[in-house]
Amino acid sequence: MQRVANCILRTDDYVLMLKKPRRGWYVAPGGKMEAGENIKDSVVREFKEETGLSIENPELRGSFTFVMREEGKTAQEWMMFTFFTTSYSGDLLEVSEEGELEWVPVDEVLQKPMAEGDREIFKHILTSEGQLYGTFVYTTDFRLIDQDLDPSRPD
Amino acid sequence: MQRVANCILRTDDYVLMLKKPRRGWYVAPGGKMEAGENIKDSVVREFKEETGLSIENPELRGSFTFVMREEGKTAQEWMMFTFFTTSYSGDLLEVSEEGELEWVPVDEVLQKPMAEGDREIFKHILTSEGQLYGTFVYTTDFRLIDQDLDPSRPD
Repeated sequence: MQRVANCILRTDDYVLMLKKPRRGWYVAPGGKMEAGENIKDSVVREFKEETGLSIENPELRGSFTFVMREEGKTAQEWMMFTFFTTSYSGDLLEVSEEGELEWVPVDEVLQKPMAEGDREIFKHILTSEGQLYGTFVYTTDFRLIDQDLDPSRPD
Repeated sequence: MQRVANCILRTDDYVLMLKKPRRGWYVAPGGKMEAGENIKDSVVREFKEETGLSIENPELRGSFTFVMREEGKTAQEWMMFTFFTTSYSGDLLEVSEEGELEWVPVDEVLQKPMAEGDREIFKHILTSEGQLYGTFVYTTDFRLIDQDLDPSRPD
């Protein structure tokens, strides 16, 4: 099972986002966990690789199960662990292999093109300090067909 | 990959533990996540099945990667998500299929026979409200050969 760890880095009124080339969708930087790695080591390593920045004191805020369905069957299932932090060191890469890095004003984050489930995650984590748990069900072309969030609204 | 969710239920000066029949080791009740399930739904369902009790407002406190090694190779890898709560409803099962249920005085928890890594987890979660992240490496007969905890000591 694939496991992904990512982090929402917010400084003052901006959030660091990565625009992926394939669909032009925005995500929080991060990537795949390696074998034997724990989720925090993973998010620090992946964030550094994608952005050049070392995040400091990332806190886990969301734990999600993603299911991708095709013809009524589960084609894939993976987990995502989303951290949050406001501090980092280092210099932003000018070019990331994974896409375009962009400091997005906080009040524009939810207007960016992104997976529908990710929008719910940003909405929650940018407005609440509580843990968010959820399951998202997508088609193989990333259309959200079901979601179950707990809490269902930000606190 | 196997995923396990469990919960440390503490009420006043007692912790609910499950003594597994095979080695006589104590664990926090819980069990395997099902396909498509998120970690919180999973811990509530599993705790109910093993104990008869409905835990209320469980909070995620620890996220762990377990690696089991055999002859220098990884034989198995799984993840465990450990929650904590102090409230529940329902009546304790008199007989659990999984082992013997026991309300253990808090100051005796760490003296019980258990996997070495689990002892570290209990020690941390019973004394700190912060999140714990970690990797544990075991032999196939459950001897702990390596661990990496973050934070390394309870706050």
